[in-house]
Amino acid sequence: MSTVGTAAAQGDQLREQVHAAARRARHAAGELALATRETKDALLHAMADALVERTAEILTANERDVAAAREAGTPESMIDRLALTADRIVGVAEGLRTVAGLPDPVGEVVRGSVLPNGLRLQQVRVPLGVAGIVYEGRPNVTVDAAGLTLKSGNAVLLRGSSSAENSNTALVAVLADVLRSHGLPADSVQLVPCHDRASVRHLVTARGLVDVVIPRGGAGLISAVVEQATVPAIETGVGNCHVYVDADAELDTAVRVLVNSKARRTSVCNAAETVLVHRDIADRFVPVAVGELADAGVTVHGDQRFVELAGDSSYVVPAIDEDWDAEYLSSDLAAAVVDSLPEAIEHIATHGSGHTEAIVTTDVRSARQFTARVDAAAVNVNASTAFTDGGEFGMGAEIGISTQKLHARGPMGLPELTTTKWLTFGDGHLRP
Amino acid sequence: MSTVGTAAAQGDQLREQVHAAARRARHAAGELALATRETKDALLHAMADALVERTAEILTANERDVAAAREAGTPESMIDRLALTADRIVGVAEGLRTVAGLPDPVGEVVRGSVLPNGLRLQQVRVPLGVAGIVYEGRPNVTVDAAGLTLKSGNAVLLRGSSSAENSNTALVAVLADVLRSHGLPADSVQLVPCHDRASVRHLVTARGLVDVVIPRGGAGLISAVVEQATVPAIETGVGNCHVYVDADAELDTAVRVLVNSKARRTSVCNAAETVLVHRDIADRFVPVAVGELADAGVTVHGDQRFVELAGDSSYVVPAIDEDWDAEYLSSDLAAAVVDSLPEAIEHIATHGSGHTEAIVTTDVRSARQFTARVDAAAVNVNASTAFTDGGEFGMGAEIGISTQKLHARGPMGLPELTTTKWLTFGDGHLRP
Repeated sequence: MSTVGTAAAQGDQLREQVHAAARRARHAAGELALATRETKDALLHAMADALVERTAEILTANERDVAAAREAGTPESMIDRLALTADRIVGVAEGLRTVAGLPDPVGEVVRGSVLPNGLRLQQVRVPLGVAGIVYEGRPNVTVDAAGLTLKSGNAVLLRGSSSAENSNTALVAVLADVLRSHGLPADSVQLVPCHDRASVRHLVTARGLVDVVIPRGGAGLISAVVEQATVPAIETGVGNCHVYVDADAELDTAVRVLVNSKARRTSVCNAAETVLVHRDIADRFVPVAVGELADAGVTVHGDQRFVELAGDSSYVVPAIDEDWDAEYLSSDLAAAVVDSLPEAIEHIATHGSGHTEAIVTTDVRSARQFTARVDAAAVNVNASTAFTDGGEFGMGAEIGISTQKLHARGPMGLPELTTTKWLTFGDGHLRP
Repeated sequence: MSTVGTAAAQGDQLREQVHAAARRARHAAGELALATRETKDALLHAMADALVERTAEILTANERDVAAAREAGTPESMIDRLALTADRIVGVAEGLRTVAGLPDPVGEVVRGSVLPNGLRLQQVRVPLGVAGIVYEGRPNVTVDAAGLTLKSGNAVLLRGSSSAENSNTALVAVLADVLRSHGLPADSVQLVPCHDRASVRHLVTARGLVDVVIPRGGAGLISAVVEQATVPAIETGVGNCHVYVDADAELDTAVRVLVNSKARRTSVCNAAETVLVHRDIADRFVPVAVGELADAGVTVHGDQRFVELAGDSSYVVPAIDEDWDAEYLSSDLAAAVVDSLPEAIEHIATHGSGHTEAIVTTDVRSARQFTARVDAAAVNVNASTAFTDGGEFGMGAEIGISTQKLHARGPMGLPELTTTKWLTFGDGHLRP
């Protein structure tokens, strides 16, 4: 057989492997959909217990991943994401207990009525079925995603990074054992082969077998998934968030909201990446803001007017075109002076990613115009962009933050992992 | 320039033409999103008036389409779909008035709360933005789709059939004139070039310009759109619907529900295409059902057991494998005898399209098991499959019936043409 032939045969084999896992997941999903909240909560608590009890085994597997990553010269920041500790496992287990404590969305009657002809109509929440999660190096996502999908009655196919393969295998082995001991199908949580990029493609094109695909990771991962997917996908997490400082903003409030939005944590999708300042407040705002941002270690990439007002600072550099579209996820911030609120709104429409956009103002008309015209998952008035988060929004936990408009927009909790079904109850009702 | 080069240049030109229309629609959508209900309802009433007033002009255009279709040897059933009459235009105009009378979903506060830190949170309904509708020969879809998308604050790109081009152009000209006279952008409703299949591809891959694509038509059109789309798409309307007659069904009810489900209208997606009969009632049910179905002109494609019980009838033929997956949309019905309720559920899971599935039974346990285990947009107990319809469900009007699980499932009315946006109102709130 030629090399090409062998590669093709291996490709077919991988495809069949992924689709066979999906078929098993589908079967498992049929059982999970009928599980009561009592059963699911007991399952999650037992999983939390088992993860803590089997810490040694998990850490041994994780050490192999960490050692391999070190050997491959992986930067320490990524090793830190990959590494588990006994404390981190306790944290992951606590996450499962939190999810167990959340209301079960399944069975909720969303709408209901009796039609004029007496037909009784109910729209009820049901699980989506099989969810595919594609993610990067953090092994805690394995458990978090499993907990949220199981609680919402779904089976899950996990496609993690090959760098975390040993850790993920160990974690899923623990979860599968607990599923079995609770009389639920172990196939409810499965790992998809992670050594070949093609397995992502096979997962996201398994129409009819997989009901939704959710990528969790950087912009590259997300667009790769969305572009290949024929299964419905939910785009998550790319955030080029703006803070707009209106002419009538309170100076102190504006500076504090900006610094919190940018510098609280720079590596998260709800961090601000650009500040836009109305020209009428720019001469007072810019020097103060630059000082506070410099204290927080932030480098500002300013347009000409911003740089001129900033004064001499090693933390200020001239912006280039790419800065307006950058999701830095670092201690960098693009900054521009604008002539008007409409210009700010236009800038956001052009460069924003539809995640979170904030205005700082005391003028109710500006607030109204900004909230009405800015098209994003979250629009904040006098509040840090950092609030866009399932935990902060009271959802208890989140599977991601959707930046698309269909199905779910913003933080996605348990209800966002369900669909609905219309039930009609008649007495031999016929349509005239 | 070579022919290939010319074709490529024409392809680029078409792509640019579609995308330019989408950019204009996007701009228009920004205005429409802010239109009040009062404005939108007045617009729809004025459109209804204008369509009736300009009937002569519309009919002249339609006659050109009809003449061309006749010349091309189009079957009369398709000509009937294409043809407009003064009465049909009045009907289309009435449809717009009905939509004007429906509540405006935009601005509805879906959820809201005050967080422990005092941050006020509102999830409000907002338009999706730009909707692309891909459809076939009926010109009335042009107006129906425009009415629903405009009322929900969206701009619309209409990609109709080339066979209806003159009709659609005349209809959109009327709608655009009314938009202009109401101070709203005429680009809110635009036709996409319809002479080249590639324009569908350009429309459904215009990510960032088009927010949702909804195909309306046959299975071929729908899967072509869904497979090509990188813009989120909503699958609509393929219906391989089943009626399952349980062992404990009332014989009369079962026969009436089946005949209504199958024969009320055979060309619609909620028509039944398969009947499954429990073996314990089959000997009583089958002969009666076959007689009633024959009276309605329905040919039954039965499995061996069904055919044996049916007796000698020119309306009964043996089923082949393809019958179980067929969406006939004609006076044909697949029929099988099953040994149990679980076998019926399994058959539906294998062959159903997730549209509407009905059980006829007097046993509450069977009803419960069927509604819990069957995975479809609508699951009916003792009621005809024909009820799955936006009008019947009290939505007033529908843009289609979604058979997918994400965003919307079942009949889609105005709220399904919206998304949401989180608004947060703080007083300089920072996240700790």
